[in-house]
Amino acid sequence: MKKADIGVIGLGVMGHNLALNFERHGYRVALYNRTAEKTRSLLASAKPDQQLIGTYSLEEFCAHLERPRRILLMVQAGKPVDDMISALQPLLEPGDILIDGGNSYFLDTERRHETLKDTGILYVGMGISGGEEGALWGPSLMPGGPYQAWENLAPMLRDIAAKAEDGEPCVDYIGPRGAGHYVKMVHNGIEYADMQLIAETYHLLKNALGLSAYQLADIFEKWNQSELQSYLIQITAEVLRKRDDETGHPLVDMILDEAQQKGTGKWTSQNALDVGAAVPTISAAVDMRILSAFKHERVQASRILSGPTKAYQGDPANLINLTQQALYASKMIAYAQGMGLLRQASLEYGYDLKLDRLAAIWRAGCIIRARLLGDITAAYQSDPGLVNLLLAPAFRDTLASHHQALREVIKIGIDLGIPMMGMSTALAYYDAYRSERLPANLIQAQRDYFGAHTYRRIDRDGIFHTEWT
Amino acid sequence: MKKADIGVIGLGVMGHNLALNFERHGYRVALYNRTAEKTRSLLASAKPDQQLIGTYSLEEFCAHLERPRRILLMVQAGKPVDDMISALQPLLEPGDILIDGGNSYFLDTERRHETLKDTGILYVGMGISGGEEGALWGPSLMPGGPYQAWENLAPMLRDIAAKAEDGEPCVDYIGPRGAGHYVKMVHNGIEYADMQLIAETYHLLKNALGLSAYQLADIFEKWNQSELQSYLIQITAEVLRKRDDETGHPLVDMILDEAQQKGTGKWTSQNALDVGAAVPTISAAVDMRILSAFKHERVQASRILSGPTKAYQGDPANLINLTQQALYASKMIAYAQGMGLLRQASLEYGYDLKLDRLAAIWRAGCIIRARLLGDITAAYQSDPGLVNLLLAPAFRDTLASHHQALREVIKIGIDLGIPMMGMSTALAYYDAYRSERLPANLIQAQRDYFGAHTYRRIDRDGIFHTEWT
Repeated sequence: MKKADIGVIGLGVMGHNLALNFERHGYRVALYNRTAEKTRSLLASAKPDQQLIGTYSLEEFCAHLERPRRILLMVQAGKPVDDMISALQPLLEPGDILIDGGNSYFLDTERRHETLKDTGILYVGMGISGGEEGALWGPSLMPGGPYQAWENLAPMLRDIAAKAEDGEPCVDYIGPRGAGHYVKMVHNGIEYADMQLIAETYHLLKNALGLSAYQLADIFEKWNQSELQSYLIQITAEVLRKRDDETGHPLVDMILDEAQQKGTGKWTSQNALDVGAAVPTISAAVDMRILSAFKHERVQASRILSGPTKAYQGDPANLINLTQQALYASKMIAYAQGMGLLRQASLEYGYDLKLDRLAAIWRAGCIIRARLLGDITAAYQSDPGLVNLLLAPAFRDTLASHHQALREVIKIGIDLGIPMMGMSTALAYYDAYRSERLPANLIQAQRDYFGAHTYRRIDRDGIFHTEWT
Repeated sequence: MKKADIGVIGLGVMGHNLALNFERHGYRVALYNRTAEKTRSLLASAKPDQQLIGTYSLEEFCAHLERPRRILLMVQAGKPVDDMISALQPLLEPGDILIDGGNSYFLDTERRHETLKDTGILYVGMGISGGEEGALWGPSLMPGGPYQAWENLAPMLRDIAAKAEDGEPCVDYIGPRGAGHYVKMVHNGIEYADMQLIAETYHLLKNALGLSAYQLADIFEKWNQSELQSYLIQITAEVLRKRDDETGHPLVDMILDEAQQKGTGKWTSQNALDVGAAVPTISAAVDMRILSAFKHERVQASRILSGPTKAYQGDPANLINLTQQALYASKMIAYAQGMGLLRQASLEYGYDLKLDRLAAIWRAGCIIRARLLGDITAAYQSDPGLVNLLLAPAFRDTLASHHQALREVIKIGIDLGIPMMGMSTALAYYDAYRSERLPANLIQAQRDYFGAHTYRRIDRDGIFHTEWT
């Protein structure tokens, strides 16, 4: 029997679809799942000529793999990954490649890399974005780890990856050790921010103009033909268009407003503080998900706490136009925060990230794919040392024409009592970044006053302390 | 020779002043510092009748302490604490009390407590706030650890602690294990937010009205007679009043606007995400410190990025009045975020925190002492189960009268291009918390669309998934 080119362990929706994606591209795929049921059902739904090999023990699974083995782990992040590595290790040989394709925390990947590096097993932490559809038809792939493993895997990964408009596969070598999972984490952080900004836009237009979900769907659909064109805008339109068969209402109106999260946004916020990067719009997105989850308290508080009672009196078309610009401006700023974090983290962790390549492989397949990613790719290609995306000419110019709309929209939200935490933090980041002088001199003086923490001066070098009283 | 009631290890500015504070209250104090120089110089500056015992080895230090020994470690957080514990452990006996008075990370304190708990040594993690002046004349003390240790220490700690207006000492038993350091961490997080809100107020008034530091000093001095009365407002006035002898300018204008930080604000932000609490204004304060540190980039960006060119045209007195209300409203909201984190953390870590007691011991001695803390104490005393400070009648009413001013001030900042991240996040938190319905339903729909993450409905229980396409 011919051996398999790759094996997939863990046949949840992502593993299942990735296996089919490999197979569709002519690769023979060995399958293993902790419970045999999933393996059997995948095989039962496959066509007879599909190159899928079901296995029911790790020994059988490993025996069916061509050497050097290529194994893609698609199990739950955390302990299940460690358990599977331990179980596989005695069955593997030097040169075999073990890929963790889950959303593992990058420091776990660093640790596992360290544990395995003397065994000869090549450990790859690979971020995968695109959801279940992407997994099946072409995800964006972010593999990190030994370059030797990348050289072996590159042809297969290029085959299964999404293709950008110019035909380029959305995969590239990210960097050593945990670099792949690090980049995927930040990708997800940006995704949180993007979704929060869209949610604020939806909230504002719905409340200010009293639009129905279907009317809002029309607006987002139209926006998807503009500079805002992106997967998230597209699916927002589709989501808003969906009718609930049971009640006849738009389905989105029947969904409970408690956002859940699986941790990557939180990790991005927490890690940015360790790295010393400011990603306030990502943090705002995480905080707004947290606040949304206090539904019971909010319902109580809505009856107790006062807010404005004003209604929007302006021209609806003007508000829609302003909001479109505000969403795009705040989205640019949020992406700049995320890319800025990647730049700092690359130095901090020695990942040597190529920001133009990251933007390039996010142009298709992944959740944050958007026309904007093409502009980001171009900005870093023309200036690889770009210190902040906001300073790229195209960004500078668009923000010059859009920042006023962002200001107006936030002010309208404030007047109407609508929380605009994402857009507000984006604007504050922009205004802070372009401030030659911030009031941190006062903070330094206060710190020196109460804690003798010292300060520096603007007119000469040195460390100073004042007896303030 | 009579033995000492307590020993202090580490004679930096805090340890030095705490030793003198104990001595002034009639306690005999043994002193030890890694370098003998500091011990000698403290003794040289002491009066002959002061009850201070210099020691020059840990053996000598321990030999001079009355049993059970009471030792206050005032060394740098991190490894120096672990090293000192290891060095002391063989010299101590069951029942001896070892207090870490530094700004240790609470999980380090938990770990050290776990390590020492079978030795019979009672390990106390104690937060100390008040800076160097507080250490000398009366700090706010937050001791956590074994209750037995608290019973032993209480009389001494009550003596040296600050006294609130009603005469009550600003110290109480906080809770088991790392509770003391946890509470101190959140205290500092609140301090970060408070300082950021003051900095934004200063920035806005300075830029909008073109006021000098001395004119601003007058304003803060006046505010310190109002509901805003607090240590931080008081020292802000004093800082703004200070003249630089070298240049003749106000000293604050000569200080470099790069804020530094020592980690407790960052820890608070990071930990809040682990606990699942939203503290966006604390996070904004940390992010603004980070952004301030990019001074060089900001100077460059100020020449490249566009902002508004408007000047403030309104009535100066009105702006000052609005800003005063906005500062107070945003401060209340920031404190509500911090107290909310403490409430959730108390459940998460089993600390059984008494929020009214925490507010009570922050009324004097510490950096965030303020008239507001009296109101917070009263709010929790009258309703110990209060789910969010914003819902307390006094807070609800003040915010009802002040939220409009907060809105106006943020809008003015937005119009002038001044970053108002602290106030904006405070308002967004307020508006989100009082929102019966947030747009998180859209986020849940998107997540279900691309990741099959499922959602809940508003009209019936259960977990749902939709095939959106």
